[in-house]
Amino acid sequence: MMLVRTGPQALLFDVFGTLVDWRSSITAHVTAAFAEKGLDVDGPAFSDAWRAEYQPSMERIRAGERGYVALDELHLENLMTVLDGLDRRDVFEPDELIALARSWERLEPWPDVPPGLIRLGAHRIVAPCSNGSIALMTHLARHGGLSWDCILGADIARDYKPKSGVYLASCAALRLSPEAVMMVAAHNADLAAARAAGLMTAFVPRPGECGPDQETDLDPEQDWDVIAADLNGLADALD
Amino acid sequence: MMLVRTGPQALLFDVFGTLVDWRSSITAHVTAAFAEKGLDVDGPAFSDAWRAEYQPSMERIRAGERGYVALDELHLENLMTVLDGLDRRDVFEPDELIALARSWERLEPWPDVPPGLIRLGAHRIVAPCSNGSIALMTHLARHGGLSWDCILGADIARDYKPKSGVYLASCAALRLSPEAVMMVAAHNADLAAARAAGLMTAFVPRPGECGPDQETDLDPEQDWDVIAADLNGLADALD
Repeated sequence: MMLVRTGPQALLFDVFGTLVDWRSSITAHVTAAFAEKGLDVDGPAFSDAWRAEYQPSMERIRAGERGYVALDELHLENLMTVLDGLDRRDVFEPDELIALARSWERLEPWPDVPPGLIRLGAHRIVAPCSNGSIALMTHLARHGGLSWDCILGADIARDYKPKSGVYLASCAALRLSPEAVMMVAAHNADLAAARAAGLMTAFVPRPGECGPDQETDLDPEQDWDVIAADLNGLADALD
Repeated sequence: MMLVRTGPQALLFDVFGTLVDWRSSITAHVTAAFAEKGLDVDGPAFSDAWRAEYQPSMERIRAGERGYVALDELHLENLMTVLDGLDRRDVFEPDELIALARSWERLEPWPDVPPGLIRLGAHRIVAPCSNGSIALMTHLARHGGLSWDCILGADIARDYKPKSGVYLASCAALRLSPEAVMMVAAHNADLAAARAAGLMTAFVPRPGECGPDQETDLDPEQDWDVIAADLNGLADALD
């Protein structure tokens, strides 16, 4: 764990995976939704299939093949794609599909996160820089007790990470230069893009994010400015 | 005080005047800045002159005569206008001018506001819908202990209230229809514009906002959905 010479004035956080355990939470919500219909489902496999549609659906927007739509819309579309693939679209009514897509507003934070954000926020601005929308991040924060100063990220930039504009628009909204801002993420690719945009970087690995067989993002792939086991370790490095 | 039939899912707040006492705070900051130079100034008159430039500076942007720039820029420009009018521009160095313009990040809340926002936020989303920028609102909230779920308003819409797009963009960022959202303000004109955009309205008069001689916004000019003496009264009406 390295010390940062000049401390950041703001910390921007990746959220899915870095702060919240999306896979266990989505598994629980999907399993419950099928159980209400008297049906079984392979919850972890369903969650992985849903998440597998995440990057391709954003990529069309990043590539300019589609105008910006919020992640809420993509989650709903991707849910229907997964159900179609399983030939199970008929299980849910339209309003039930919309409610199930909003499972992403009810993800459990890793245990260090709620107290860690309060500690980190005592001395500097803390905000999500997620691909989730303002609405999604707002509901997620209320669900999990995440204390934010404001909500930045995809909706502000109308584009998706790791496009540099998302990091830069988030810094600009705070009227800070990227050099005064640190991106915190469990994903090397997110940090690489943030570093390329001029931000400081902190790696907080979450080896359980993708389940027991996770092989990616177990270790830092660059000399990130801070490497910490959790948000308390990050606060120790910064304070 | 009237009861609202269907409670709002989100409350949007005007900030300057409704939640914070800009006039006393700006008077104190301006007086201190001149005193550091060994100079006297009529603090209240300076504050009123600075605030008098507020609407005209936004009006050019509302009218499409100028592209959107954040209120932080307008505050700085308007400060220089007021100093020029007093033939006192030479009093401050450029970095001192910038620091003085940021006085708007350090305004004191009315006493009912910090606890009132916590109480109101327990059951629904609370967010500013101010003409202040995300950065300005973030600093102001940290200064005064204002608890927000997210920051909406001018920066989201890239335009200024009372243009309808500012209220509508704020609702859209929450993925709520205007009918599910209530605007809270001490100013009848703000509420009239919010009502025209389809929002519910709550009037919380602040008769001291503009000093002892205030003549405007002492009384409701329409049958607003809620009329309350302060944020606790608003919470009483909603809960």
